[in-house]
Amino acid sequence: MTIRADGRQADQLRTITIEKGWSAQAEGSALISFGSTKVLCTASFTNGVPRWLTGKGKGWVTAEYAMLPRATNSRNDRESVKGRIGGRTHEISRLIGRSLRAVVDTKALGENTIVLDCDVLQADGGTRTAAITGAYVALAQSIEWGRENGFIGKKAVPLTDSVSAVSVGIIDGEPMLDLAYVEDVRAETDMNVVVTGTGEFVEVQGTAEGAPFDRDELNALLDLAVGGAVDLSRFQREALGL
Amino acid sequence: MTIRADGRQADQLRTITIEKGWSAQAEGSALISFGSTKVLCTASFTNGVPRWLTGKGKGWVTAEYAMLPRATNSRNDRESVKGRIGGRTHEISRLIGRSLRAVVDTKALGENTIVLDCDVLQADGGTRTAAITGAYVALAQSIEWGRENGFIGKKAVPLTDSVSAVSVGIIDGEPMLDLAYVEDVRAETDMNVVVTGTGEFVEVQGTAEGAPFDRDELNALLDLAVGGAVDLSRFQREALGL
Amino acid sequence: MTIRADGRQADQLRTITIEKGWSAQAEGSALISFGSTKVLCTASFTNGVPRWLTGKGKGWVTAEYAMLPRATNSRNDRESVKGRIGGRTHEISRLIGRSLRAVVDTKALGENTIVLDCDVLQADGGTRTAAITGAYVALAQSIEWGRENGFIGKKAVPLTDSVSAVSVGIIDGEPMLDLAYVEDVRAETDMNVVVTGTGEFVEVQGTAEGAPFDRDELNALLDLAVGGAVDLSRFQREALGL
Amino acid sequence: MTIRADGRQADQLRTITIEKGWSAQAEGSALISFGSTKVLCTASFTNGVPRWLTGKGKGWVTAEYAMLPRATNSRNDRESVKGRIGGRTHEISRLIGRSLRAVVDTKALGENTIVLDCDVLQADGGTRTAAITGAYVALAQSIEWGRENGFIGKKAVPLTDSVSAVSVGIIDGEPMLDLAYVEDVRAETDMNVVVTGTGEFVEVQGTAEGAPFDRDELNALLDLAVGGAVDLSRFQREALGL
Amino acid sequence: MTIRADGRQADQLRTITIEKGWSAQAEGSALISFGSTKVLCTASFTNGVPRWLTGKGKGWVTAEYAMLPRATNSRNDRESVKGRIGGRTHEISRLIGRSLRAVVDTKALGENTIVLDCDVLQADGGTRTAAITGAYVALAQSIEWGRENGFIGKKAVPLTDSVSAVSVGIIDGEPMLDLAYVEDVRAETDMNVVVTGTGEFVEVQGTAEGAPFDRDELNALLDLAVGGAVDLSRFQREALGL
Amino acid sequence: MTIRADGRQADQLRTITIEKGWSAQAEGSALISFGSTKVLCTASFTNGVPRWLTGKGKGWVTAEYAMLPRATNSRNDRESVKGRIGGRTHEISRLIGRSLRAVVDTKALGENTIVLDCDVLQADGGTRTAAITGAYVALAQSIEWGRENGFIGKKAVPLTDSVSAVSVGIIDGEPMLDLAYVEDVRAETDMNVVVTGTGEFVEVQGTAEGAPFDRDELNALLDLAVGGAVDLSRFQREALGL
Repeated sequence: MTIRADGRQADQLRTITIEKGWSAQAEGSALISFGSTKVLCTASFTNGVPRWLTGKGKGWVTAEYAMLPRATNSRNDRESVKGRIGGRTHEISRLIGRSLRAVVDTKALGENTIVLDCDVLQADGGTRTAAITGAYVALAQSIEWGRENGFIGKKAVPLTDSVSAVSVGIIDGEPMLDLAYVEDVRAETDMNVVVTGTGEFVEVQGTAEGAPFDRDELNALLDLAVGGAVDLSRFQREALGL
Repeated sequence: MTIRADGRQADQLRTITIEKGWSAQAEGSALISFGSTKVLCTASFTNGVPRWLTGKGKGWVTAEYAMLPRATNSRNDRESVKGRIGGRTHEISRLIGRSLRAVVDTKALGENTIVLDCDVLQADGGTRTAAITGAYVALAQSIEWGRENGFIGKKAVPLTDSVSAVSVGIIDGEPMLDLAYVEDVRAETDMNVVVTGTGEFVEVQGTAEGAPFDRDELNALLDLAVGGAVDLSRFQREALGL
Repeated sequence: MTIRADGRQADQLRTITIEKGWSAQAEGSALISFGSTKVLCTASFTNGVPRWLTGKGKGWVTAEYAMLPRATNSRNDRESVKGRIGGRTHEISRLIGRSLRAVVDTKALGENTIVLDCDVLQADGGTRTAAITGAYVALAQSIEWGRENGFIGKKAVPLTDSVSAVSVGIIDGEPMLDLAYVEDVRAETDMNVVVTGTGEFVEVQGTAEGAPFDRDELNALLDLAVGGAVDLSRFQREALGL
Repeated sequence: MTIRADGRQADQLRTITIEKGWSAQAEGSALISFGSTKVLCTASFTNGVPRWLTGKGKGWVTAEYAMLPRATNSRNDRESVKGRIGGRTHEISRLIGRSLRAVVDTKALGENTIVLDCDVLQADGGTRTAAITGAYVALAQSIEWGRENGFIGKKAVPLTDSVSAVSVGIIDGEPMLDLAYVEDVRAETDMNVVVTGTGEFVEVQGTAEGAPFDRDELNALLDLAVGGAVDLSRFQREALGL
Repeated sequence: MTIRADGRQADQLRTITIEKGWSAQAEGSALISFGSTKVLCTASFTNGVPRWLTGKGKGWVTAEYAMLPRATNSRNDRESVKGRIGGRTHEISRLIGRSLRAVVDTKALGENTIVLDCDVLQADGGTRTAAITGAYVALAQSIEWGRENGFIGKKAVPLTDSVSAVSVGIIDGEPMLDLAYVEDVRAETDMNVVVTGTGEFVEVQGTAEGAPFDRDELNALLDLAVGGAVDLSRFQREALGL
Repeated sequence: MTIRADGRQADQLRTITIEKGWSAQAEGSALISFGSTKVLCTASFTNGVPRWLTGKGKGWVTAEYAMLPRATNSRNDRESVKGRIGGRTHEISRLIGRSLRAVVDTKALGENTIVLDCDVLQADGGTRTAAITGAYVALAQSIEWGRENGFIGKKAVPLTDSVSAVSVGIIDGEPMLDLAYVEDVRAETDMNVVVTGTGEFVEVQGTAEGAPFDRDELNALLDLAVGGAVDLSRFQREALGL
């Protein structure tokens, strides 16, 4: 098996750290690192729901993703300065929101809204997967906050499962787990997989960057991702003290 | 096997029509229908490339997707009036562009730019897959235009394969091909699959709308999609007179 | 009399076709052609009026005009991408709205709103006049829909007259009716005239593109326009089956 | 003949004043009043032309119209605050530009650009016609500035004629000249007419606000407008000291 | 003491004129000149307050500052055309609003809103200080209008003091009062001071444009500003006929 | 002397920490804390200058300030989502830029550009002063990077001094240093003072939030600020290892 630039094996995650409660202001938060990729995830809990959902007895969970201008190797203009949000930002924000909603029972959440903000402080590949993985921790913490503050019933179970995400890709013909930026740009196929704690799929997004991929390659990538998700799920439980 | 609302079987496409050259103005065009979904795809061929690509001997292919305000059952505000493009529009435009670039040899295309515009005139589910399938036809026509007008070499082969797309989903536990709108809103899992003429994957985007999905369900959906793509590929060849 | 590039005489319209009910989704619709100019007009009927009109017992009719990016000979950037609507688009949208409101009795319409969307699929001169002429058909169809669905009284007469529009211009000193694009760019004077079915004026917009024009020229142009409007009015009645 | 609210006769202009050179900063300027309507017109002369016109030996004249937020009886939000320019503003800016270009020989102007800014300080009807009439004076002054500063040839004649504009309308069935705001809102038909110093038409824009109008009414309005333009033309010459 | 370019002494204001009630439309207005700097200030009084302030028994005063495109020596693009308000405009609008609110007792004002629009017609340095000084006069006039029209109690005292502003700066080492544009661009330090009629500070904004400044220089500048404010306060009283 | 909520004395700074080089990507960076206020400052060094400065042998330093949506106690909408930057953000960005340029010799910097991004990760009052103080450290580090990489001469001295900033205010009549958020909202007068390492002023911005302030109060605040700046300057030197 090929040894990668940073010494990892093909099926090995980078060093993962999750610091729950990093923010003193938010109801839930996590500073998560996938190697050099660092994302600050905060959960803002508010009682009540958007107008279009009022009176249905359901809650709402949504997410926004963004990158600091100098999170990357060269500086990008701020989207606030450009006056519009780019397609990539939109796409990732929507992905994070869908991924989290897949493990939320909005009835059990009650008429409460949780907004997850995932701000990339430093980027080295896999920012969207780190964001999903960290946002789950912030979400879980904020739900406990809601329970302690009486907005969620004592016995309600708003989280039906946990959720994490990891990237996989094919580089020089070999499937690899959790790509760093230098690997990501070289990958022929790039896939982001969102997996529940019980090992089912929430999202599978595979893209042929170079040549199209066949069924065998797809299967090999999914195997790697499911394996990585087992580890990420464990790191989440540890961070949450479960 | 369940009979669907419109009488189709689970593995059956809707009626597909592709009218090549619908537009008198564009270098390539196709009006494509997937049942009641109608998308007008035009290809605008221009000699030269964006500044960031100049002098590299490569061409560029990109796409923009949009929907007329009353393509849907109730009217949506125009994005031009709102002053910003929504996340869904961005996401689909990017998907169409990536899908087409996957079958383009930009060196063989030479320093030419082709912009695909996919405007949904009527929407009944599957607009993005119809757009990709129709845009390929417009692209192929515009490449022939480029060849006839001397912008592309006589023996150059800018298209390495064909490409089409189809949606699949699980409804009431059963995998189904090419979802109409009424099916799409009920689907537990929804997947868009972009497949080359030779049956390889360009994009696989599966989303759990309700419950997460497992490996078996994923496999069943991919089987359906690959089957549908064989038919779509044939319709494309017929439309192009190949 | 000069024979024109397309063989028409100076006082002759291009081939006019009006396909009522082209859209399966809208309450009213028409695909109209003035020669190669094709405009898809849809009417969206909604019960209720904007807040500023509430409780006055009156309805509201408004219009939006737009062009697909490749409706024209070379591609134009989308206004949604530019993030702002151009002056020409605004101007034409307002003209269409005013023209239709001139034949609507808003009291008889009741507290209902009709939005006309006029999207140019292919442009070869006269897009605004085709839009007005087609929008009237969509409007009339949507009013019948409103009546059938109980939103408009059985004996109410919301339409006081019909309305159509046509362009006229002076080319090489000669007044001509219904200019195609190649004629429009050469016209010294260009006029759009909106006329009711009974032959009165709703809008007269004449512009000296080259030299100013005198009273005789103005009169000759108005004569041509009024003649053309008689024919357009007949095509509208035929399309509506009246 | 009816006596109007302000004591004028039907064919009488309001008090017109034109103060040439009001601005100490601009190359040309005029503060013009049509009764209580006050518009500050400035002409900004710059050597050179926009990129798309470079090297053609022609100049460029364009205009921008705007209204101070409290020019009117109740305050309007600033278009800069709303982040977009309204349709009415666009429409009038374009009208002013076209009207002035109709009397400019751009070859004689040489490769120079003149931007006319027409800012309404106080509005009481007829702001666009006052703007055109005043902008002509600012334009003429700036052309003399260009000549004195060596950017325009000593014998060049960039202005082929003068141009002014006036509104006319039908109120209670009677045609009237130069409508004040209280008249404008009551007018059944409203027309803005742009006329050269030699009495030819540059623009004729008539709109039925209430009932459509017939040929006789149109003719009566044009007669009034041509009469008013003779006076405006004289006021312009006096302001310019000709 | 140095004699300045325009013959003034270091501690001398330019010619100040304040024309109360310049606008026929607004509830309060003043056209103010500081030398060649001319600012039109209007106060728009409306009964009621923004939603966030409703029911608190307090009024609201806010301000917007803007410059005509050709107020300055060379033309600036309109912020409405650019689609966004620049930082400088925002900053000055906020400064004017804060300065006026410092002398308003919002309880005594009652639930009324006053918007001050300060539009620079001609700019020659000190536009923000002229705007504050003139806006106070418009504000005072509009409060009297509110009292006369029954929106403010007969004995209420909404204005706790008057307020004016002046710029000071150090040029060639010498502190000077009320800088004209040619002085402003040469100033090493530039300070805007907002002072009440009783001589206390509302805002002190000092900026080192070139070298940093020390405590002695700061003190000398404040002395000058306080002296100038005494005169401005007197001009305001005269304009208001007090 | 009053003991403050957090136990500090009136003239005492909060705990200050400065972590130089926090970011692995930027040429200079510092994570700075003023108590619970945390700002990530990065310096992006690029060879070359904006077009308007080209060929003048001078460099350029500019800054952008922003706040994460949940840096504060309740969530704020992102400015990128709102599509426009607020006045406060603009104002602070400009302040940071001016403050840093006051200690930069742009000739010695050469034709290089340094952009300082100051992103508030957690806000508890004094974010702009923390940003200036931390940005100086990032700036100094990036200049050393430029020197080591040959873009700045070996003996060039682009920094003429250091610069830091601190807030001061009057609470219940007593002047206090370095206000935390709970103090800031209660302050009658609020002042931000930017001071060089040698104790001179770069910016003095004092605002009466409640009652206007007199000369004695101003002097007391300046004394406090100058004292605090001495400490901040020392922390900066320590962080830079000087």
